[in-house]
Amino acid sequence: MTKLEYITKQLNKSKGKVYEQYIVNRIINLLNDFTIKFTTQQYVRFQDGRYALTDLYFPQLKIHVEINEAHHDIIADLSREEKILSALNDDKLKIPDEKDYVSLMENHKVISIYVYRDRKVKTIEEINIEIDDAVKCIKDRKVLLGTNFTNWDTNDPEPTFYINRGHIDVIDDISFRYTHEACNCFGHNYKLGSVWSGGALHPYQHNTILWFPHLYANKSWNNQISHDDSIITEKSNDLDKMNLELTSHLAEDSREAELRIVFAHVKDVLGDTRYRFKGLYKLNRVMSSNERGLIWDRIATQVRTYPQNQNHAL
Amino acid sequence: MTKLEYITKQLNKSKGKVYEQYIVNRIINLLNDFTIKFTTQQYVRFQDGRYALTDLYFPQLKIHVEINEAHHDIIADLSREEKILSALNDDKLKIPDEKDYVSLMENHKVISIYVYRDRKVKTIEEINIEIDDAVKCIKDRKVLLGTNFTNWDTNDPEPTFYINRGHIDVIDDISFRYTHEACNCFGHNYKLGSVWSGGALHPYQHNTILWFPHLYANKSWNNQISHDDSIITEKSNDLDKMNLELTSHLAEDSREAELRIVFAHVKDVLGDTRYRFKGLYKLNRVMSSNERGLIWDRIATQVRTYPQNQNHAL
Repeated sequence: MTKLEYITKQLNKSKGKVYEQYIVNRIINLLNDFTIKFTTQQYVRFQDGRYALTDLYFPQLKIHVEINEAHHDIIADLSREEKILSALNDDKLKIPDEKDYVSLMENHKVISIYVYRDRKVKTIEEINIEIDDAVKCIKDRKVLLGTNFTNWDTNDPEPTFYINRGHIDVIDDISFRYTHEACNCFGHNYKLGSVWSGGALHPYQHNTILWFPHLYANKSWNNQISHDDSIITEKSNDLDKMNLELTSHLAEDSREAELRIVFAHVKDVLGDTRYRFKGLYKLNRVMSSNERGLIWDRIATQVRTYPQNQNHAL
Repeated sequence: MTKLEYITKQLNKSKGKVYEQYIVNRIINLLNDFTIKFTTQQYVRFQDGRYALTDLYFPQLKIHVEINEAHHDIIADLSREEKILSALNDDKLKIPDEKDYVSLMENHKVISIYVYRDRKVKTIEEINIEIDDAVKCIKDRKVLLGTNFTNWDTNDPEPTFYINRGHIDVIDDISFRYTHEACNCFGHNYKLGSVWSGGALHPYQHNTILWFPHLYANKSWNNQISHDDSIITEKSNDLDKMNLELTSHLAEDSREAELRIVFAHVKDVLGDTRYRFKGLYKLNRVMSSNERGLIWDRIATQVRTYPQNQNHAL
C-alpha cells in the first residue's frame, strides 16, 4: 500500500461525522509532515480492559486526538480516561473481537477538541485555534523525541530487518501481513500459503512453537489475553477437546512445546488481517485446568531472530 | 447556517472518492482563507447546454478545481470543456432538474488535478505539489481582484441591502431562501408563508409580476430556460390549460402582466431550496404558440428595488 492510499483511506473513514472529518483532515493537512504516521478511529484499551475509539492517533508520538461532538456539557473533574469514555456510546465499550488495539499507557497524551461550548457549536475561528494548538503540540512532541523519532515507513516490516538486528521486541509495535513472514524471522524460508494457520515449529529452539492465535471467542475457541498482554488463556468450547489438550500438555512425559512465540491474529484499522507480535509465553502448569484452560504467561517481550538456513532440517 | 456548518457539510460530500476527498480538504486547509467561499460538486452548465459537476468551485474567483480519478490516459488535445466532460460519466450529462448551476464562462479558470499518470497513481509528494500549485493559483487570483474581491458572507442576502442599493443585478449571483424575501425587495412587507408559491404582484410596477417558476419538467409543467438564461419557455403538460394560458395572455384586451421578474426555484449544493434571481423577462407575443408555449425573453439583467411602504395599497 502506498502512503497516498493509506492516508486517503484513513481520512475517509469518519463518514457522516462532519466536524470530526473536518478537524481530522485539517490537523493532518496543517501538520503537513508525512514522516508522522497516523491512524483514525483507533481502538484503545484501558487498564481496566475496557475499549474505546480515539478519532486520531499518532503511534510514533503516542498522541491521541479525541473530538467531542457531544452536545452535553463537559464535566470538568473527569479523569482523562473517563473523558474519552464519556464521549463514546456504551456500545463502543464491548470488546471489538479481533480488532487490533493500542493500550493506553501513562506516557500517552490525549488532546481533546470540543465542538460545543455551553451547548452551542463553536465558530470556525474557535475550532481552528484549537486545531492549531493540537498541531503545535504534535510538532513539539516530534522535536522532543529527536533521534528517537523514526520516520514513518509505509512498507510492511521485513523479516530481513529483524533477522539482521538479531531480535524482535514488543516495543517495535509490529505486525506482519502474513504468517510466513513471521516464521521467516526465525530461520524458516516459507512462501505465502505454506504455513499452517495455527502455528509452526521453531527451527532452532526446541520446545518452542510460533503461534498465531485468535485471542477472542469464536466457534471453537474462547481464547483471551489479559489487558496488559501478560497472560493468554487458551480454552476450547469443546470440553472433550479441552480435556485432551490439557492432558497432552500437562502429562509428565508431554512432548508438547511449552514455549510459544505469539503473533496474534488481528484486524488492523483498515480491516486487513495482521499478525501482531506479543512476546514469548510459557505454559503455566500450575494454573492451567479444565475450567480455566491452558494458561500461558509472558516470560519475555523480546525474542532472538535467526537467519534463514536452507540446509537446516526442520 | 454558520460558516463551520457550511464548510464541514461541503467537505463531507465526496463519500467513497478517497482521492477527491483528500485533495479537496487539503486545498481548503492549505488555502486557509475563509473569506473565500467554496462549493463542492458544483453543477456547471456549458455553452451547449450540457451539464457537468466540478469537484470544487470558488464563486468569488470563478475558479473550478476538477479532480481526475480516471485510470485512462489523458488525451492532451482536448479542449478544457471536453476535458471536464471526459472525466465524467455519461449519466452526469443529463439535466439535473432543479439543481442550481453555474454557467461556465470564458473568464472561468479550471484547474485539473490528475491522480494517475501512465496508468499509475502518483505519489503523495507529487499530488501535494499539484495541490500547492492550485492553492497558489487561488491565492493569486484573489490578490489580482484587489478591491473587487468581497469577503464571503455566510449570512443570507438581505432584502434591505438591495433596497438601499436601489437594484438587483444578475451579476450579484444571489438567491433568496424564501420567496417573501424576494418580494420584499420590491416594496412588499410579507412574512414567511404569506406569498403564493407561483408569484406575487409587483406593488409599484404595473404589468409586472414577481415569478418563482420551476424551470424544468414536473407533473404539470415543462418549463425550460435556455443555456444562457436569455429565454424562458413556459409550457403546460395539459393542452387545455396551455391553450387557456395562451389565449388569456395573447388576447388583445389581455389583463395578464407581460413583464416578469424571475426568481427561479432551484436546489442549492446542500440540497436546500433557493430562489435565484434571473432578470426581467417580457412576453414574446410573436413566438408564443400552443406548440412552443409562452416564450419569455430576458430584457434586463438588472431591476430596480423599492423600499417597503406599509401604506401602499397592493
